Order: sequence, then C-alpha cells, then structure tokens
Amino acid sequence: MRAMEEKILSAGKILPGDILKVDSFLNQQIDADFLFGATEEFYRAFAGCGVTKILTIEASGIAVAFAAALHFHVPVVFAKKAKTANMSKDVYCSKVESYTHGCTYDVTISKEYLSENDRILIVDDFLARGSALGCLIDLVGQAGAGLVGCAIAIEKQYQGGGEELRAKGVRIESLAKIAAMNEKDGIRFC
Amino acid sequence: MRAMEEKILSAGKILPGDILKVDSFLNQQIDADFLFGATEEFYRAFAGCGVTKILTIEASGIAVAFAAALHFHVPVVFAKKAKTANMSKDVYCSKVESYTHGCTYDVTISKEYLSENDRILIVDDFLARGSALGCLIDLVGQAGAGLVGCAIAIEKQYQGGGEELRAKGVRIESLAKIAAMNEKDGIRFC
Repeated sequence: MRAMEEKILSAGKILPGDILKVDSFLNQQIDADFLFGATEEFYRAFAGCGVTKILTIEASGIAVAFAAALHFHVPVVFAKKAKTANMSKDVYCSKVESYTHGCTYDVTISKEYLSENDRILIVDDFLARGSALGCLIDLVGQAGAGLVGCAIAIEKQYQGGGEELRAKGVRIESLAKIAAMNEKDGIRFC
Repeated sequence: MRAMEEKILSAGKILPGDILKVDSFLNQQIDADFLFGATEEFYRAFAGCGVTKILTIEASGIAVAFAAALHFHVPVVFAKKAKTANMSKDVYCSKVESYTHGCTYDVTISKEYLSENDRILIVDDFLARGSALGCLIDLVGQAGAGLVGCAIAIEKQYQGGGEELRAKGVRIESLAKIAAMNEKDGIRFC
C-alpha cells in the first residue's frame, strides 16, 4: 500500500456529507516530514519533463506544493482567491466553484509569475469534481505556458473530475485515489 | 550580510504606502530552495527549546512555516481566517486587524491541534505592527500551551510591533530586520 493511502486509513476520518477529514496531517495540521517524503513520488513521475515552476492555489495547496518544489528545485506560485492591495493589477483571472464553501470566487495570479516560457506542474491537495484544477489549467492557458501535468495528494476518483480532465489529455498523478468511500464501509482505493 | 537581507535587496521592491513587495520569492511566488535554506537559522536559534509544533496563519505564513518544520521535524498547524464547513465547531478563536486589507477578521484553530502539552514556535512571513502575531500568541494562551518564541522572515522594526512584544517577554528572531525603508533611499537593516 502506498504511503498516502496508509496515512489516510490511519489518520483520516469520513464525515457526513462525503467529507474526508484529513485536517490532522494535510489541511490544518500538516505533517511536514510525511508530506516531504510522500511528494517524492511526484518527482519520480514528472522528473525529466522540464518542469520550471509549480502552480497551486491558496491556502491548503501551498504546503503540498512547497514540499514538491523541494524535490524539483523550482519555485512555487500560488493563485490567490481575492485581490490584495499589494498585488499588481496585471493579473490573470479565472473563476472557481467551491463545493466546500458553497460559493464561486475569482482566482488571480500576477502575470509576472506565469509566462509562455514556463512548463508548469500543477499541485493540489484534493481533486474531486475538478473545479479548482480546471481553474488553474485555465490560468496556465491564459499565460501561454506549457502544462506538464497535475500532481494531486488525494483524488476522489468517484467524483469524476480526474477522469474528465484525463479524457481531455491532461496527465494527472495522484498519491491516493479513492474509488469509493462511506461512513459504514470505509474507504476503497483504486 | 544575512541571506534574507541579500534576497530582499536583490528581489524586493518598495512600493508607495510603505509596502515591501516580496511577491517574487515569499508571498505569491515562493523560492522553495532559498526558504528552506534561510529557515535553518530558526532551527539554530530555537533548537533545544523543545518545540513540539509550529503555528502560523494562512495563507502566506504556510510556506515559511513548512520550511521551518522540516528543520525541527515537527508538524505545522495553521490558523484559518474563516470557518469552513469541514472544521470542527470546537475551535479557539481570536481577532486580527489586517492593515493590508483594511478589515478585522476572525481567526480560528481547531482545539484538536493545540494543547497544554505543546511547546509552540510561531512562524510568520512578516512582522509589522504585530496584529497577526498577537492573535497567534492569544490562541497559544487559550490552549494553555507553552510559547517558545516567534520566528519571522521579515520584521519591519520601525513599525514597533516586535519591540512591543519583546517588552512583554516574547522572544522574537527575525531573518531580516528593517530599521527604515523608503522609495528614495531604499532599505536600512538593523
């Protein structure tokens, strides 16, 4: 069994509403040593693809993206969910729908940090319906950068977002891929 | 000259409104290798203090806290700026005033991840007037945890937040401490 799968079984909790709570090592408390070790798998998968930059979205994507970046020795760029006073007005912008928060919000990234010369690996903590990932892919497209692929900590395969993107030709590698999950029977991995 | 000071001089920009823009390596784009190297200084300062956990605040504190955690081999916990659907109602809560965004907001952390048995090192990217840091210290106090100290990437010493907290007995170590800064004369470090 893979490291992320073992960690989910030992430290994750299934909550009502199809929620997998991994707050104890990924989302609010972050097991830094574990995450650094686990993300080496991303490097094995995408080494040799010429990755120049890792792209993620705040806030919960930052730790896993940072861990991955230490293996690739490239910078992380993170998309922001709200414009801030000290961000350049020269931004790429896309929209993302959050099922967790029940709203749609703008996501922006300064044009300074994504260019047509970049080869981008997108990294995120979760992939479910693919809304956040679709938004990040859109930002990469707006910049004219190359998309190497997507590296995901936990994919809820049964929610279909990953399959939809793979059908469009996007390469996605996930550290754990959940085929089914419920409070009674627990988790079944792909 | 220290690594963070050199980086600020080579990659930072002073903007109107007393803003030090370090988006290119700390805030939006993150130079992972640099940050991992620079935060070793935190470990040298606080090794032997029995740190059990690193506490920060989303979003821009996460990367520097994660980098530090890899030196201490302890988990990171980050305080959240808004309650989310999958967070336990059992949270510690404090208020922080954001001068960047011109508003006050609630900051919460699940009680699961801070306890009286913890010895906490607070890590953040910036220290100016000390509003965010004061809020994190308050959360540590609510949990009855021990506060080892605060480790800051960039302190704007002239804004007084650090001195006020040091006067209360809080140990604060900063990778770069700015004594004065303006667009015309540039930056003077302490």
